[in-house]
Amino acid sequence: MVVNDNKIYMNVLQNGLDQGEEINKAVDEICNRNIENVFLVGCGGSLAVMYACNYILDTRSNIPSYAFNASEFNVINHKQFSENSLVILSSYTGSTKETVEAAKIARKAGAPTIGFMGKLGTPLAENVDFAFANDAATGVTDSKLIMLYQVIFRLMQNKGQCEDYDEIIKALKTLPTNLVKVKEKYEKTAEEFAIKYKDEDYFMTIGAGILWGETYSYATCIIEEMQWIKARSVHAGEFFHGSFEIVTRDTNVLLFRGEDETRPLCDRVERFCNKYTDKLTIIDTKDFPLEGVNEEYRGLFSPLVLSAALDRVSKHLEDKRNHSLKIRRYMGIVEY
Amino acid sequence: MVVNDNKIYMNVLQNGLDQGEEINKAVDEICNRNIENVFLVGCGGSLAVMYACNYILDTRSNIPSYAFNASEFNVINHKQFSENSLVILSSYTGSTKETVEAAKIARKAGAPTIGFMGKLGTPLAENVDFAFANDAATGVTDSKLIMLYQVIFRLMQNKGQCEDYDEIIKALKTLPTNLVKVKEKYEKTAEEFAIKYKDEDYFMTIGAGILWGETYSYATCIIEEMQWIKARSVHAGEFFHGSFEIVTRDTNVLLFRGEDETRPLCDRVERFCNKYTDKLTIIDTKDFPLEGVNEEYRGLFSPLVLSAALDRVSKHLEDKRNHSLKIRRYMGIVEY
Repeated sequence: MVVNDNKIYMNVLQNGLDQGEEINKAVDEICNRNIENVFLVGCGGSLAVMYACNYILDTRSNIPSYAFNASEFNVINHKQFSENSLVILSSYTGSTKETVEAAKIARKAGAPTIGFMGKLGTPLAENVDFAFANDAATGVTDSKLIMLYQVIFRLMQNKGQCEDYDEIIKALKTLPTNLVKVKEKYEKTAEEFAIKYKDEDYFMTIGAGILWGETYSYATCIIEEMQWIKARSVHAGEFFHGSFEIVTRDTNVLLFRGEDETRPLCDRVERFCNKYTDKLTIIDTKDFPLEGVNEEYRGLFSPLVLSAALDRVSKHLEDKRNHSLKIRRYMGIVEY
Repeated sequence: MVVNDNKIYMNVLQNGLDQGEEINKAVDEICNRNIENVFLVGCGGSLAVMYACNYILDTRSNIPSYAFNASEFNVINHKQFSENSLVILSSYTGSTKETVEAAKIARKAGAPTIGFMGKLGTPLAENVDFAFANDAATGVTDSKLIMLYQVIFRLMQNKGQCEDYDEIIKALKTLPTNLVKVKEKYEKTAEEFAIKYKDEDYFMTIGAGILWGETYSYATCIIEEMQWIKARSVHAGEFFHGSFEIVTRDTNVLLFRGEDETRPLCDRVERFCNKYTDKLTIIDTKDFPLEGVNEEYRGLFSPLVLSAALDRVSKHLEDKRNHSLKIRRYMGIVEY
């Protein structure tokens, strides 16, 4: 049976918003220093959620940003990293050893650090300058992205690079209500998808731009990690330069189309896949109303809309496949 | 029957080196302007080969660099991109429409452009300030990387950020001979690999750091595009945060271990995979002598060593699977 946890979800998102004042204080204090760039550091889903921030900084600000897997960040001695880098770290457990190590490296270099984790008191929380926790049974990633957005837009605003800061924050505040409606709207479609595709042994997810993180993490952290099915994330622009050659009539393709600048890349994938596979599923964030959100900001929130819709897909896959999203072969079970 | 084209290969690499003087002239002329950063733009394998340059600039210079799929670059209006960006573009055919469009966008913005392609006279060659061609039946990517290295190290040297420029260029000049020896040394092992794994329906490639581009492109441009087998490239640091959960005793894993800073990440993958799959293959660039190359520069050349070894794997897979590396379902055949 699929649990509807929408009330809990709404509270978790609201909790992310409610920490806005503390987040602002942290960012304002950090901005008393000369911040030259931003490093987004984590692993797996905790890294992927930050790709949207990377995209926003790249396309809406002059603040350079770099997203790195923590274990790579820890060894490469990136030459743009300095005491003037804002380092944003994330780990749901707060104990991912690579991410904790990255926090220590950042601190040792004198760089300001902000960390996101499930619970305070965890190693990551203890090793950053500012720690924000949002433990919950559901919606952790979405809540985290809401908090991350508050960090980066505040940073941009403080740097004089976000004229519409107030409007964006106002739109952000509509999300607890709006994203629940996304889930409700997608519930039935998600169930139908799960019934149709529950026996697939391969998923190809395709996306680009602001949705790349979610495209990557859905293949990696849900389909592979939580359902033990082979999966592959493909960038919509890269699709035509390799991966599309394996597409045949029965290739299971999930196309994630957002409302950012890269939307035409996904249109091209749709045109191709419509011709060559019978198993194309599209989640288009444009199909979901976001009341109170100005048209021009919808693209910013595409990752959250997609994540909300995909949560229902995951829950129905779990149910129809009789494979809990919580069981693991190795993670947290064996040493590695 | 597997063709040994090592003589042609050596000539192709030498041709890349022989263009060094012209490359230097181009870079020197570009450096008369104030170059603030580098954009590496292409699609598929032509993009992936440039990731190594991205890694080198990140870890050995203060010159920011950004690698982008051309179609994404063309639409996102990246805020770090300006007339002071050096834009390096690559397309084997010289006619990849997204990449040609990127060249036009760069030029229109007044940014200096260098392009690499198979043949002069192609659209990409016609739309860049400096065009370098190296058409050949084999070794095109390796030759291109040799040319790219000459570009970025010259740039670093001109910016006062490459004290050991002469030593690096000297080492680069040993590659035509050394890489042929890599191929010869790996020939038998590659054939054994192809015999053993020719019927696999899935390949997972794993790598990190300077080898990430090759890790990505081997899965995408060889296994998927040229052999029509499902494949998935996984970053060695990300492996433990999702993808490893699908590993069972019969999961076919190719681990690519280089000699850059990220080598320990691959050691960790090896330890895990040794325990949980019977089908782990490791290509370790350290196993190949590079005569005349100082120990400290070997890491820089890991992508070339790996690419040379993998070329033999591809050729034997083609042979044992009776599936030409040249046939396509869609690329160059249908409109998309």
